[in-house]
Amino acid sequence: MTFALDHRLARDTLVVGDMPLCRLLLMNDARWPWLVLVPRLEDVVELIDLELADQTQLMDEAGRAARFLKTRAEVDKINVAALGNIVRQLHLHVVARIIGDPAWPTPVWGHGDATPYGDDAAQVLIAAAREGLPIQAIKAGAASSSFL
Amino acid sequence: MTFALDHRLARDTLVVGDMPLCRLLLMNDARWPWLVLVPRLEDVVELIDLELADQTQLMDEAGRAARFLKTRAEVDKINVAALGNIVRQLHLHVVARIIGDPAWPTPVWGHGDATPYGDDAAQVLIAAAREGLPIQAIKAGAASSSFL
Repeated sequence: MTFALDHRLARDTLVVGDMPLCRLLLMNDARWPWLVLVPRLEDVVELIDLELADQTQLMDEAGRAARFLKTRAEVDKINVAALGNIVRQLHLHVVARIIGDPAWPTPVWGHGDATPYGDDAAQVLIAAAREGLPIQAIKAGAASSSFL
Repeated sequence: MTFALDHRLARDTLVVGDMPLCRLLLMNDARWPWLVLVPRLEDVVELIDLELADQTQLMDEAGRAARFLKTRAEVDKINVAALGNIVRQLHLHVVARIIGDPAWPTPVWGHGDATPYGDDAAQVLIAAAREGLPIQAIKAGAASSSFL
């Protein structure tokens, strides 16, 4: 099985690490605490393409991501969505919304331009996520390693 | 347990019927085949408020809804989302998207005004959903019945 992250997801996010099923990404947009979960599987587009056990695991990891975001700040609503109209690789958004945030109460997708994190702010959030979630280090070059 | 559907959801949708966990609604907007699943529980706002068994059941019913929509027409993508910024009662959108549809590739929420179905078109779709999904009749006045 070869997992390769879509290049647009790679461009727009920072890598937090791997949970048992998903690669966890932080959207590089400081306007919202916004995580993206990408199951490390090949050729999966729709939630209904997942086997039942993977669906359950994805919901578990999304729940952990949501609870993590709620520990970081006062959150009024969590938005959870699998859209994929532009990037077809299955990915699940978990976004913390606060009343009065830049898009409130409309959805965040397509709302203006991203405000990239300063380096420190992103690293603080990523370190907290690695501490608070079941994250493993990503093996460099794992997919192409001759040892596998 | 008393389940009461949020009045804005009731206003914007047509009732298909009850699945084991969720009331299934058809968004009254002919621009997109769009179902909404509302767990028949009290005071549930976030997906993470659901017990694990109910989360699994919701995913099962959402999957059935998605597969049903794919039987009705050529569908390019299914959008699945729990947003709830306006209506806090937990509800899950399952929307069939087609390349070139009125909002493609942006999200459907907040995109212009709904185009209500003609009576016949809605009834054909609702009848097909009742045939193709595990729908029970809704007991009239069940919540307030003196027999329960």
